[in-house]
Amino acid sequence: MSRGRTSPGRQSESATADLGEFRFESGESIPNLQIAYATYGEFTGDNAVLVCHGLTGSQHVAGYGNGSGVAGQARAWWSDIVGPGKAIDTNEYYVVCANVPGSCYGSSGPASDSPDGDPWGTDFPPVTIGDWTRAQRRLCDHLGIGRLHAVVGGSVGGMNALDWAVRYPDDVARIVVVASAARLDPQCLGLDAIARRAITTDPNWNGGDYYGEDARPDAGLGLARQIGHVMYLSKESMDHKFGRRAAGRGGRGDSYPADPAAMFFPYREVESYLDYQGEKFAQRFDANSYLYLTRAMDDYDLSEGYESDSAALAAFEGEALLLSFTGDWHFTTEQAESLASACRRVEVPVSHHVVESDHGHDAFLVEPEKVGPPVSDFLVDGPSGRAVTDTASDNHVADDETDFAPVHSSLFSR
Amino acid sequence: MSRGRTSPGRQSESATADLGEFRFESGESIPNLQIAYATYGEFTGDNAVLVCHGLTGSQHVAGYGNGSGVAGQARAWWSDIVGPGKAIDTNEYYVVCANVPGSCYGSSGPASDSPDGDPWGTDFPPVTIGDWTRAQRRLCDHLGIGRLHAVVGGSVGGMNALDWAVRYPDDVARIVVVASAARLDPQCLGLDAIARRAITTDPNWNGGDYYGEDARPDAGLGLARQIGHVMYLSKESMDHKFGRRAAGRGGRGDSYPADPAAMFFPYREVESYLDYQGEKFAQRFDANSYLYLTRAMDDYDLSEGYESDSAALAAFEGEALLLSFTGDWHFTTEQAESLASACRRVEVPVSHHVVESDHGHDAFLVEPEKVGPPVSDFLVDGPSGRAVTDTASDNHVADDETDFAPVHSSLFSR
Repeated sequence: MSRGRTSPGRQSESATADLGEFRFESGESIPNLQIAYATYGEFTGDNAVLVCHGLTGSQHVAGYGNGSGVAGQARAWWSDIVGPGKAIDTNEYYVVCANVPGSCYGSSGPASDSPDGDPWGTDFPPVTIGDWTRAQRRLCDHLGIGRLHAVVGGSVGGMNALDWAVRYPDDVARIVVVASAARLDPQCLGLDAIARRAITTDPNWNGGDYYGEDARPDAGLGLARQIGHVMYLSKESMDHKFGRRAAGRGGRGDSYPADPAAMFFPYREVESYLDYQGEKFAQRFDANSYLYLTRAMDDYDLSEGYESDSAALAAFEGEALLLSFTGDWHFTTEQAESLASACRRVEVPVSHHVVESDHGHDAFLVEPEKVGPPVSDFLVDGPSGRAVTDTASDNHVADDETDFAPVHSSLFSR
Repeated sequence: MSRGRTSPGRQSESATADLGEFRFESGESIPNLQIAYATYGEFTGDNAVLVCHGLTGSQHVAGYGNGSGVAGQARAWWSDIVGPGKAIDTNEYYVVCANVPGSCYGSSGPASDSPDGDPWGTDFPPVTIGDWTRAQRRLCDHLGIGRLHAVVGGSVGGMNALDWAVRYPDDVARIVVVASAARLDPQCLGLDAIARRAITTDPNWNGGDYYGEDARPDAGLGLARQIGHVMYLSKESMDHKFGRRAAGRGGRGDSYPADPAAMFFPYREVESYLDYQGEKFAQRFDANSYLYLTRAMDDYDLSEGYESDSAALAAFEGEALLLSFTGDWHFTTEQAESLASACRRVEVPVSHHVVESDHGHDAFLVEPEKVGPPVSDFLVDGPSGRAVTDTASDNHVADDETDFAPVHSSLFSR
């Protein structure tokens, strides 16, 4: 990309839409749903691509969030994939990304102000992925977008993309579901539940009423995030990143209470990493939002209200790309394959493209050279896109050795 | 087994030995190391089998702990394997099991009294697996046991058994290392570190000084245990046990703080299980002991002080059985195979017997019918025991399909 060049893809907007009264799936309402969003590129009527962020992401999918107080995964979290000349090319597409309701990057949520001027806290209505989708539909109306060219999402954002295909089957031509599944498995449900208990047993959580207090539930939120980080990595990536190596004491993150006997043992790199991540996260994210958003993720079940995953997808007349990663134990390749089978049963054109990667769930963020080409080609040509592979295609079934092998195309190769 | 029959195997003793001054590997000493232990069967001079317990186990490997205030995994934790007529047959062997120093079932540890009459708390010296082994050696001297027929241990107890082979290579004829490894991998190190932080960030932990207080760090210890439980299970076993099913609210364990919005979502069986386990564990275990013992486990490295795992084992002239379980992600089959290779390199006779199981790490406790036969036959005949298989044997290498297949012998079949 040429930074100096003036092109349609360079246009971007970051704003907050007032969408009026919004009734959540729980039946509770708020008088004015605010959705913070960012757009990239120029809308031509049929080129809108909605990108759905992950659990703790923001609307700033491709940067321009520097002045907005966001950090970490919230800032330009997929700028290797989305931008001028990138796989989701903002010279071609009008990319929209919205902070989901319940989050804390400008959209209505527990930390935002209620009508009485104080933060909602835990009086904010419970939030579901269905609510995210419905809020995004409202935002699209607000922006004058009817049918979307595509909805693309990673991790829980992939569930959000799936929900679009079920809820508004005529409104989206293509969905891209990256490192996601039809539902969370009980192992991940268990870890998410533990993470929430780490927050709610922190006395500073105080029943969710800590806004304006000096003491915030940073310890609990930090622990929750540490559990999350282990879920996002893999045994292999942790071996490579940290091994059993000792880190220097007193460095970043080394601020958790410990007893004297702890000093006999090394402070390991893996601890230093987790401590630093926990501390950093507590600075950028809201503890109540973490409760709300993990519950939305845990609750999501593609088949809910239908007889099966297939039945849920039956009305969808668009096409689907599923990307999964061999080292991902948060959302496994097996779960993606099960979802692919559900698509095939109701003749939704689908490709399940498996990426060989040791990076765990994180791969969808840190392996753009493997994610970009199939996404890019699918957005243009659907499941028959050049760099798109499928587990059900003949060349894969015929050859055990190359089954699940990645396509090593270079990014921007088309 | 016949309960009415009077046999030598029915003899048992549960006692506490005063072993005098003990200098820990840290260099710190205590004036009188007390070790709580249990014995089963009759000592004949060459039939002693030391069983090493797991992280939160006790000396009560085969029962007789009912009146001792222990519960859960601390009570009769391997009674399917150890007892009269069982795989480790107390009619044949004199079985000794000792509560490790640092634990809380009667041996010296943070919760036991220091010379000034108050509990040691975190003034108790740091504890290593080497200290466990050295304390067990002292206990054996006290009991008049010279050379052991075998040392058998599961999980961190397997590390304890390995340490015997390294530290006292002439004192043990056979080691049985069940669901264990030469060292913990960084993923498990990370989860253990998070578990410790859950304890030390609980305000009731109070720097380790909570004995005699009404408020104890039960919430933090409960969270730590919940993380442990996820490590002990597997995706498959959690799928079978819980699925995504809802449990009734207000039932066992449902006492963690929650916000009103949580009530919109189901309280799942996996949460109910974890909550109950966390609560139960906090009643039976000491939070400081949990810190001490997980640090000992995390710190253990077979190769420490040697050039390699092989070099550490070179002086061992006995035989080894390694049992691993395909669904175990705490201590993997791959780690056990690496340990087997280390044995083979220095010509320690070894069999690596792989058990096909979906039960995760828990398999070593809950699949006695698969664990018993190889252990039983190995204790009698070593690696050539009838029910013992080995990953390096020809029939395994030759046949991919049956590689790692379990031996479906029934218990007591010999």
